[in-house]
Amino acid sequence: MNTPKSDVCFDFLSTRKRTEHLCLPLELEDFIPQPIPDVSPPKWHLGHTTWFFEQFVLLNFESNYTPFDPNFLFFFNSYYQNAGERVARNLRGTLSRPTVKEVLNYRQYVTSAVEKLLINQQSEDILELVTLGIHHEMQHQELLMYDIKYIFGMQPAQPIYGNSFELTQELQAGWKDVEGGIYEIGAQNEGFSYDNEKGHHQVLLNDYSISQALVSNREYLDFINSGGYTDFNLWHDEGWATLQNQGWKAPLYWQQRAGNWGYFTLSGFKEIDLHLPVQHVSYFEASAFAAWKNCRLPTEAEWEVASPLFSWGQLWEWTGSAYLPYPGFFKALGALGEYNGKFMVNQHVLRGASVATPPGHARKTYRNFFAPQSRWQFSGIRLVK
Amino acid sequence: MNTPKSDVCFDFLSTRKRTEHLCLPLELEDFIPQPIPDVSPPKWHLGHTTWFFEQFVLLNFESNYTPFDPNFLFFFNSYYQNAGERVARNLRGTLSRPTVKEVLNYRQYVTSAVEKLLINQQSEDILELVTLGIHHEMQHQELLMYDIKYIFGMQPAQPIYGNSFELTQELQAGWKDVEGGIYEIGAQNEGFSYDNEKGHHQVLLNDYSISQALVSNREYLDFINSGGYTDFNLWHDEGWATLQNQGWKAPLYWQQRAGNWGYFTLSGFKEIDLHLPVQHVSYFEASAFAAWKNCRLPTEAEWEVASPLFSWGQLWEWTGSAYLPYPGFFKALGALGEYNGKFMVNQHVLRGASVATPPGHARKTYRNFFAPQSRWQFSGIRLVK
Amino acid sequence: MNTPKSDVCFDFLSTRKRTEHLCLPLELEDFIPQPIPDVSPPKWHLGHTTWFFEQFVLLNFESNYTPFDPNFLFFFNSYYQNAGERVARNLRGTLSRPTVKEVLNYRQYVTSAVEKLLINQQSEDILELVTLGIHHEMQHQELLMYDIKYIFGMQPAQPIYGNSFELTQELQAGWKDVEGGIYEIGAQNEGFSYDNEKGHHQVLLNDYSISQALVSNREYLDFINSGGYTDFNLWHDEGWATLQNQGWKAPLYWQQRAGNWGYFTLSGFKEIDLHLPVQHVSYFEASAFAAWKNCRLPTEAEWEVASPLFSWGQLWEWTGSAYLPYPGFFKALGALGEYNGKFMVNQHVLRGASVATPPGHARKTYRNFFAPQSRWQFSGIRLVK
Amino acid sequence: MNTPKSDVCFDFLSTRKRTEHLCLPLELEDFIPQPIPDVSPPKWHLGHTTWFFEQFVLLNFESNYTPFDPNFLFFFNSYYQNAGERVARNLRGTLSRPTVKEVLNYRQYVTSAVEKLLINQQSEDILELVTLGIHHEMQHQELLMYDIKYIFGMQPAQPIYGNSFELTQELQAGWKDVEGGIYEIGAQNEGFSYDNEKGHHQVLLNDYSISQALVSNREYLDFINSGGYTDFNLWHDEGWATLQNQGWKAPLYWQQRAGNWGYFTLSGFKEIDLHLPVQHVSYFEASAFAAWKNCRLPTEAEWEVASPLFSWGQLWEWTGSAYLPYPGFFKALGALGEYNGKFMVNQHVLRGASVATPPGHARKTYRNFFAPQSRWQFSGIRLVK
Repeated sequence: MNTPKSDVCFDFLSTRKRTEHLCLPLELEDFIPQPIPDVSPPKWHLGHTTWFFEQFVLLNFESNYTPFDPNFLFFFNSYYQNAGERVARNLRGTLSRPTVKEVLNYRQYVTSAVEKLLINQQSEDILELVTLGIHHEMQHQELLMYDIKYIFGMQPAQPIYGNSFELTQELQAGWKDVEGGIYEIGAQNEGFSYDNEKGHHQVLLNDYSISQALVSNREYLDFINSGGYTDFNLWHDEGWATLQNQGWKAPLYWQQRAGNWGYFTLSGFKEIDLHLPVQHVSYFEASAFAAWKNCRLPTEAEWEVASPLFSWGQLWEWTGSAYLPYPGFFKALGALGEYNGKFMVNQHVLRGASVATPPGHARKTYRNFFAPQSRWQFSGIRLVK
Repeated sequence: MNTPKSDVCFDFLSTRKRTEHLCLPLELEDFIPQPIPDVSPPKWHLGHTTWFFEQFVLLNFESNYTPFDPNFLFFFNSYYQNAGERVARNLRGTLSRPTVKEVLNYRQYVTSAVEKLLINQQSEDILELVTLGIHHEMQHQELLMYDIKYIFGMQPAQPIYGNSFELTQELQAGWKDVEGGIYEIGAQNEGFSYDNEKGHHQVLLNDYSISQALVSNREYLDFINSGGYTDFNLWHDEGWATLQNQGWKAPLYWQQRAGNWGYFTLSGFKEIDLHLPVQHVSYFEASAFAAWKNCRLPTEAEWEVASPLFSWGQLWEWTGSAYLPYPGFFKALGALGEYNGKFMVNQHVLRGASVATPPGHARKTYRNFFAPQSRWQFSGIRLVK
Repeated sequence: MNTPKSDVCFDFLSTRKRTEHLCLPLELEDFIPQPIPDVSPPKWHLGHTTWFFEQFVLLNFESNYTPFDPNFLFFFNSYYQNAGERVARNLRGTLSRPTVKEVLNYRQYVTSAVEKLLINQQSEDILELVTLGIHHEMQHQELLMYDIKYIFGMQPAQPIYGNSFELTQELQAGWKDVEGGIYEIGAQNEGFSYDNEKGHHQVLLNDYSISQALVSNREYLDFINSGGYTDFNLWHDEGWATLQNQGWKAPLYWQQRAGNWGYFTLSGFKEIDLHLPVQHVSYFEASAFAAWKNCRLPTEAEWEVASPLFSWGQLWEWTGSAYLPYPGFFKALGALGEYNGKFMVNQHVLRGASVATPPGHARKTYRNFFAPQSRWQFSGIRLVK
Repeated sequence: MNTPKSDVCFDFLSTRKRTEHLCLPLELEDFIPQPIPDVSPPKWHLGHTTWFFEQFVLLNFESNYTPFDPNFLFFFNSYYQNAGERVARNLRGTLSRPTVKEVLNYRQYVTSAVEKLLINQQSEDILELVTLGIHHEMQHQELLMYDIKYIFGMQPAQPIYGNSFELTQELQAGWKDVEGGIYEIGAQNEGFSYDNEKGHHQVLLNDYSISQALVSNREYLDFINSGGYTDFNLWHDEGWATLQNQGWKAPLYWQQRAGNWGYFTLSGFKEIDLHLPVQHVSYFEASAFAAWKNCRLPTEAEWEVASPLFSWGQLWEWTGSAYLPYPGFFKALGALGEYNGKFMVNQHVLRGASVATPPGHARKTYRNFFAPQSRWQFSGIRLVK
């Protein structure tokens, strides 16, 4: 990887700025709650993405670096066990301190220190780590939007964030055929990629046809109306148990008012727009829908090979592939090795990107992953037959 | 009850003001978290005490009253099932909206409306309800301080609130004897009292001696050091199970650092002051301590009868009495009947008052109550033998 | 206490025999399950009542005693922490071994050894401990019947035990008045009594009227039909939460089949007999019923004072009294002190006796106790006004 | 499939007999407990394998068939939602009735009826269903042994079952190389196979080396002794959480007594035999061990392709493959379609067989599966590098 140093610095500064920009519509109170363990307080995202640069870049490479506040190294560690103690994940919402203002000061302090480091030093190690930190922060920008949506959606008054992340109708329709054979997938050494997508390798595919459009709300409403949420034959055993425990009757954010389905969106509560792709479905729901259509979800290899044949990027697309290491994958040593590998069990891969994916963060080799019951992320369904 | 109307109005306004005054040391972020279900966000106390006046006074007696925001009637109901739907208690910490500013506006709106009502109307019904609302708000002022302490104590940085609620050494010592016989307890019709303390009635007491001082930290530390938390013979079966599940080794807020016990206080983390009364003990701990001393806790009748013999008011004092109705107690009809009666099971009575009890809110007939495992309230121990 | 030695021996042998006799209708498989933690396997009762004599009598007083099997001292300890390690209460149903046959052999071995001891030794200590063991076993005979009923009631086929424990219609009706004043309650030194009922003492009562009959199924069905289980105003807050979590709509064992209420009994599933007393209600239900009737439950002192005025003994009767120590109560040292005192929190007292109470075990001073949500015991309701 | 009819009948009768034979060492009490939800009572296995024939064969194909007892259709259904209501899985241990004797009579009744059907009818449909039922019962024979071992291991006295299922030392050592390329895996139409292993298909493999021996207790003890259970870097995030919640320090059934590791086996408690393969490890433990060795687990395709190169069959071998459908897999309609497909999420594939696998039930295409935390099955570890 040989991104010019100046570009790294520019990317760094604009990424830092973008995170703060995403928070502009928030009231100060919105930075605090953690309504479910999966949803982190926005303040925590602001701090954690900063901590990453302080912990892995500044403390390693800036010889005279004084941490902004030693306690912050504890507050804002997420799950890096190698980087020391941390606040238990499900207690993030109990932290009123440091205040938002202090966290913004922390951001500025670390941003300046990294900028100074980048100006003064040229080592490839630093550039690589800062680049990783940029992509880490981009990933959190997307999570931040999921979490803001969830927090707003929990408020009885369902406040409005804005219309920056609206979906549009998928314009292509029909199926594209792909001939079976040996193909290559995985990241090559051009541009940034995570450890989990590296290892360009061959895969053997059978013939398949892939839909050009994501499943629409109209199609999904047909599924609901024809009893999709009451016929256990369509569901995984664990999916059916989840549906029953959680009382699922529709995707997340859908509510029936006076007999009609509507949904909470970042721009307020709305009638279902039947032309838009269905959003906020779990793997269990995506699989049940596919079974109802006598189709299936693509494997991640099928998706990657076919991806030039359709337009993608509105919603992350569930694949039928469990999240497992690529051939030759080994975890890096130390804290950075915790980034991906340790989650490779009981998760499913999603491919593509979403309207909340930061510009420049999407690529066809990207392996996103969530637990099969998760549905607060911006996820949709593409079928294969 | 015939408090002059002007006094009610003055009490009302100063009580409203005092609640807001208690929040002055808070950062805006501190108003939001609910670290455990028992601890409500300060913002919720601000809103709920206001809701009480809006729901029970304004909506009933102010003919042209327009609610500040109809949603607030839903947000800030606590447990009054008769007053309609409400936010589930354990989700209070998920509410970032309404903002603190909006809640303060709500307070002002309702305070002005009640003030206007009190100036224009003279009905006894209104005065009684407003008086109840004042005492309700005083009760929440005390809970607010418990909850602020808990929230501050949860912060890794343990911020400082101030030194307004510090304990002092108990100056009297020794035992006072009370001769057995028939005594009278319970509230008479002088001044305000809750339904649960009404019903002045006779009780039959045996001879007993009651300690003039609350148990000190020094005595309690002896209990800890002599194995009080490891000898199940001293504990209730359910107390022992709680101790083991929660890992109790000392009162709430005590922490061992470098081998020495200290505790978090509203004015910061400190060494244990051995002269002060022990605080933040559960009924289980109070009982175990008493058993270790071959003493017992007073019954609430013993406490009330003996209360003129000692100085009280630093800490609520656990009694050995379960919280049960007084002879002749009947629940009022409707929502206000939910105030006390429905909690009369699996709770123990505490008597006295604490440094956090608002001025004018303490009286010797007051029956406070908490579950036997609760210890975030300002509670202490007085012995009887 | 100076029961003649020969009577103790006779009582001992006949009590031991009666326990075994109660198990005659069981299939061997019925001795094993523990469907809920409260319900112990019948095999466990057989072993535990035997363990009590082995642990507290034989190991202390029979110099050359060889335990039947040292492991049984571990298997069949219940909650006596002073008597060493024991199988966790909720795992009793996992124990298939020792087999029922081995436990019956254990019974015979210990019964013979105690009999021999009683013939050879005359010490008062032994007689007292054996007498306590007899009453302990009688208490377990009653629990055994509760547990057998629960286990049988869990079987989809609801097997028949027999008709030995059927209720009869209460023949007296109307109310008896008791004049207020000072009365004496508690056990005097005539015959056996537990530590918790000792301490004959004065109580002060107000005037009251007590019903001569227990509440009937007809009255309780009226309560159900008039919405008793849907009106939270009648319930304790914790009772209402229990009702909702457990889905209570009627007493335990009641089932609606084809629109009609019936109940499982030890002699099979039957239509509700409207003339019989209502059975298997919790304290929460008893209190809600009383509130619906504008009555209340008696205190335990009221019950004991009035008990000569009515016929009792079909069902244990919930009182409004929390289970607390009598004046002067102190726990005995060591394991036997664990018998009662450590349960004196979050329990309510029941008075009287039931059809499952062994002959000779009932007395008007007896203080039975259960948690307010328990209803698998044979409990009923008597009202006071 | 055209197995001669007479062979099916013989296989049927000998499989039925073998199940009963496996229970000979049990006491009647051992048939009842369900110590954890995963472990079914032996009585339930006896009944459920019989129910399968009654429900799917006799009720469909024997025109005048009278069920043994209509209730048994409810008792012994496991998870077939299409076959109607069933006893909740975690309540199986509450069923003392039907008795073991009644279940054995049920077995005999159904066995005779199926035998008669097989003699009188020749339809391919019946033969296929009976063959499926035989394999279903074989699978339960193996589960029965896991469950018996768990139940015996729970008894404080740890009874002895016998030495029929002992492991032996793996005799081969070293690694076998497999050259990358296209291979074929999956069941062809020779002999019986489940729906999940059908669909003979090509896979593309890279070069790999596979160990000829399973990992031994000696190697695993090295892992334990060098801190394998305390270094989170070796574990999946979810594995580490499980280890901490469950307090794992070694495989299931291992106990440290007086500082030395031993384990409970079906022939009693023993010292660890260092020469034998390690057993009763979860996927999490197998993966952590492999990581510690700088190796990995084979994929299921690698395992199947290499299986002729080593001896297998002592223990099921964890693979790195998530349990997912083979290309072209579709669930059958109705109840039999529930056999496999609905479990294809959050499970990992195990390949091979174990000493508890019935004769004739092992084949190299067999896809066994368990949740990654399960370890009561007879599972071991084979490495790949």
